[in-house]
Amino acid sequence: MVEASVPAGGTGARIPVAATAPEDGQWVRPAKDYASSRYSGLSEINASNVASLEPAWTFSTGVLRGQEAAPLVVGNTMYVVTPYPNLLYALDLTKPGAPAKWTYQPKPVSTSQGEACCDVVNRGPVFANGTVIYATLDNNVVAVDTSGGTERWRTSVGNIARGETMTMAPLVVKDRVLVGNSGGEMGVRGWLKALDVKTGKVVWTAMSTGPDSVVLIDSTFKPFYPKDRGANLGVKTWPGTTWQTGGGSVWGWISYDPALDLIYYGTANPGPWNPAQRPGDNKWTSTLFARRPETGMAVWAYQMNPHDLHDYDGINENLLLDIPWNGAQRHVLLHPDRNGYMYAVDRETGEVVYAKPFVHITSSDSVSTKTGELALDPTKEPRVGRVVRDICPAAPGGKDWQPSSFSPRTGLVYVPHQNLCMDEEATAVSYIAGTPYVGMNVRMKPGEGGNRGFVTAWDPVQARAAWRIPENFPVWSGTLVTAGDVVFYGTMEGWFKAVDARTGKLLWQYKTGSGIIGQPVAYRGPNGKEYIAVLSGVGGWSGAIVAGGLDARDSTAALGFVNAMRDLPAATTKGGTLYVFAIR
Amino acid sequence: MVEASVPAGGTGARIPVAATAPEDGQWVRPAKDYASSRYSGLSEINASNVASLEPAWTFSTGVLRGQEAAPLVVGNTMYVVTPYPNLLYALDLTKPGAPAKWTYQPKPVSTSQGEACCDVVNRGPVFANGTVIYATLDNNVVAVDTSGGTERWRTSVGNIARGETMTMAPLVVKDRVLVGNSGGEMGVRGWLKALDVKTGKVVWTAMSTGPDSVVLIDSTFKPFYPKDRGANLGVKTWPGTTWQTGGGSVWGWISYDPALDLIYYGTANPGPWNPAQRPGDNKWTSTLFARRPETGMAVWAYQMNPHDLHDYDGINENLLLDIPWNGAQRHVLLHPDRNGYMYAVDRETGEVVYAKPFVHITSSDSVSTKTGELALDPTKEPRVGRVVRDICPAAPGGKDWQPSSFSPRTGLVYVPHQNLCMDEEATAVSYIAGTPYVGMNVRMKPGEGGNRGFVTAWDPVQARAAWRIPENFPVWSGTLVTAGDVVFYGTMEGWFKAVDARTGKLLWQYKTGSGIIGQPVAYRGPNGKEYIAVLSGVGGWSGAIVAGGLDARDSTAALGFVNAMRDLPAATTKGGTLYVFAIR
Repeated sequence: MVEASVPAGGTGARIPVAATAPEDGQWVRPAKDYASSRYSGLSEINASNVASLEPAWTFSTGVLRGQEAAPLVVGNTMYVVTPYPNLLYALDLTKPGAPAKWTYQPKPVSTSQGEACCDVVNRGPVFANGTVIYATLDNNVVAVDTSGGTERWRTSVGNIARGETMTMAPLVVKDRVLVGNSGGEMGVRGWLKALDVKTGKVVWTAMSTGPDSVVLIDSTFKPFYPKDRGANLGVKTWPGTTWQTGGGSVWGWISYDPALDLIYYGTANPGPWNPAQRPGDNKWTSTLFARRPETGMAVWAYQMNPHDLHDYDGINENLLLDIPWNGAQRHVLLHPDRNGYMYAVDRETGEVVYAKPFVHITSSDSVSTKTGELALDPTKEPRVGRVVRDICPAAPGGKDWQPSSFSPRTGLVYVPHQNLCMDEEATAVSYIAGTPYVGMNVRMKPGEGGNRGFVTAWDPVQARAAWRIPENFPVWSGTLVTAGDVVFYGTMEGWFKAVDARTGKLLWQYKTGSGIIGQPVAYRGPNGKEYIAVLSGVGGWSGAIVAGGLDARDSTAALGFVNAMRDLPAATTKGGTLYVFAIR
Repeated sequence: MVEASVPAGGTGARIPVAATAPEDGQWVRPAKDYASSRYSGLSEINASNVASLEPAWTFSTGVLRGQEAAPLVVGNTMYVVTPYPNLLYALDLTKPGAPAKWTYQPKPVSTSQGEACCDVVNRGPVFANGTVIYATLDNNVVAVDTSGGTERWRTSVGNIARGETMTMAPLVVKDRVLVGNSGGEMGVRGWLKALDVKTGKVVWTAMSTGPDSVVLIDSTFKPFYPKDRGANLGVKTWPGTTWQTGGGSVWGWISYDPALDLIYYGTANPGPWNPAQRPGDNKWTSTLFARRPETGMAVWAYQMNPHDLHDYDGINENLLLDIPWNGAQRHVLLHPDRNGYMYAVDRETGEVVYAKPFVHITSSDSVSTKTGELALDPTKEPRVGRVVRDICPAAPGGKDWQPSSFSPRTGLVYVPHQNLCMDEEATAVSYIAGTPYVGMNVRMKPGEGGNRGFVTAWDPVQARAAWRIPENFPVWSGTLVTAGDVVFYGTMEGWFKAVDARTGKLLWQYKTGSGIIGQPVAYRGPNGKEYIAVLSGVGGWSGAIVAGGLDARDSTAALGFVNAMRDLPAATTKGGTLYVFAIR
């Protein structure tokens, strides 16, 4: 099922040295390193022996919703966060079968379940300062002492009554815990906050909409493109006060370049989805931001999708890579956006080095690297009272939250993603705090070829796919790549797969109990052996039909995703189990 | 941890030929054969290679309660029944990872959850006549067509409003589906029913209490012991009309001897537990019955625990064995009773051939094979207003529902059981339909030695334990023994273990996601290989503290079981996953 083969040798792409993590056998932050590479330097499990991989032990999380978290490994302990009610387990890796040393249970506000748009997932914790830190669905950020599971601090940062929830994995940079909110379908107003890692006190808040003063923009702010320049665009690009309910939530990934001392993250879609209700660019939604971690001040911004028409959140991961390009070495972040383009953006300036399609796109024609502008296809603009058909990619984009990985050995980026198109019809919608604020009837369907997912190996230097693996369902899990030249990912049927990092050839697979939408990680156990761990348990937006028990007859359920996933309940069941694999 | 070793060679005990099942690689009824041996003739996985066993695939049941069912294998399909809401999955073994061919979902009455005393378990289905037949918690017996998962018939046989539920695995004998009810803690009145396998129509009902006419006793009824003889004892051994709410439910196991054409099963405890409210023998509770399968007429009965004081249900399994005893070949059923004695009872007459303790017993001194009488220790009788201490075994008995297995190769019976004592104080209680009717405050605690469970290898010919394996928690899973001379069982921590059938030596173990209280089975897959399957997912009476999220501070919760299981929540988590193991 592999369409092409990787170029021999590496592509020339590299992880910037300052953003790498030492290979100490641990996995202490969501993406392993600040570059978001999800690359493990372990090579005991490799392409020639991975066929012998087997489940070493398993652990039931006790919660049957979508399991999107990356397990962390710190010292001899593994930390696993469940979906709501967001339990945190500390598993003792020094003992066979890894029993729980302790369990931390936040006291969640039960109404938060009703506010989550797309299952009650959690994308995992981060380790820092002797604590495991994560965000609960009900907008608390908690720091739990690793020594005994007691709560070091807990900070409430959002308001459920406004429809705010939290699902993202924090990142800690210097002494700042960086966290953002979810709720773009409820008319929330997005923000990224920095909390003091020792006390949990909020140090700064960068709003995604509103006047420059609250977006943390001052005279030093230098967007690369004129289209992103001007005063108070977070107000002026909206009609009236609609920026106050305009979305731009921050529920995805954060990267950090220590050399430039800049953090990178994207903001989500504008609200409501119905674009007629918000004429203008709707800044700063669907935007990449570069900010200073200590002050939060914006250094540059680039709006991928001005006046977004199709729920193309900009929250996807940003892999920090240095690549040769047109004879020069460019320091870029690689950003596979929901709009279907793989962006390489200069980390220092925000210039688009390239933006090339990684999926079939009908909603736009191209991205100009000169102006930074996305050339929309006007026939695909949703309208009230008219069904616009065959918009590709669909609302979850060419790729959603599920994070890619990069191997410095192959030079390839392994992108897990979907292949979906949609029909849309806009509807008028009124804002009522804490209720859905969408204004769009969506019906998704499989894209070209009929398969709904791919793992694409992207050559960041040639700016094209080296090969891709089609999957029946969206590939909603993250990928992991190791120095053993093996890429791991899971399918929504529940297969956990190992493929050759150079060719995509399937080397091994194992059927877990439920669909996999988690993030695989690699670590070295106390016995010195390499292990691969992943959560199994279908759900998330794509799997809400199973995790939430949605009615397949309602084609617009789960914001239209159900229409493309009617056969998922026949392919998998609810689950919630950690699988840990090793070679005996 | 093994205390002794097995005698060399077999013990001389045999499964009666007529009650064996051909080794066709299938597992079509709960205990594999009518003798209830749970013996698999497969030997590909054996004591010398079982250390290479590994999980071949897993399947999430999507339900997080105690998983007590035995998976069935019929042809190339595996059938798995979940706890309430009692889904039935048909898994296609011809395809890697065994995806579901179809799922049958009964329309359950949700109030049944509140009526179950001890978690909402289901002990599995039976295959007959092209259908998979099982009982739902809300008292429906359903026959589901194996060809497409459609409901062939569905018969309502009980009344939730009276506190009746169903948890047992039916057995089909000839064209009769034999099923009984649960609810001994709600003042239900027990029964066993026979339904026509083709239509589901009730053919006969044998009540456990009441006049002979409804207990299906006529002049041909011949109990072996005078204590069990007399007219209408199901009424006369009760004060007033208390027999109408007197318990004797039938929620355990049924065996069948085709040569004698007799079915065997036991009845549960009398209600309420407070014995002062029901002076008399309380027939026919805590009783073994032999009946004709076609008419239901009783042939003999033997009451193990007249006027039961301690919730010693008689529902445990009856293994049909032929054993040499005092120079003669005796055709017995081996019955490990909750009262702590291993009974060998003549299958034809009901004579007690022997009754020997298999656990530490303080509640009684002995059983007379002459009179059939249990010699109670009067100091252990519970009283109102007085706490009676150190009653052994505790209410769940020396052994509860978890079924034993027997190997004709070793001649040993592998008994999974608990090691618990209790303090009891009786309280007055009034009957209100559909509510708990117990009248006893119970606090359980570990028995002698401090460990709460054992696997005991019982030599049925020497009438003593050959060896035993202590376990920290009650061994609440069934055992399986194979022609490979391996015994499989699970622990409440989640370990699935393989031990040498001759010595008890641990050969292999694997940590599943949650505590195991299921019934392991062996089968031959379509590829000709041997597989071992078991459900993982803690719960049941012993695991209710986890599955039901009970408060450990209430020492009398779960009828006093919580007091002995306060540390279980630290040892395991809720789960619901099928594990299938093989050697690669």
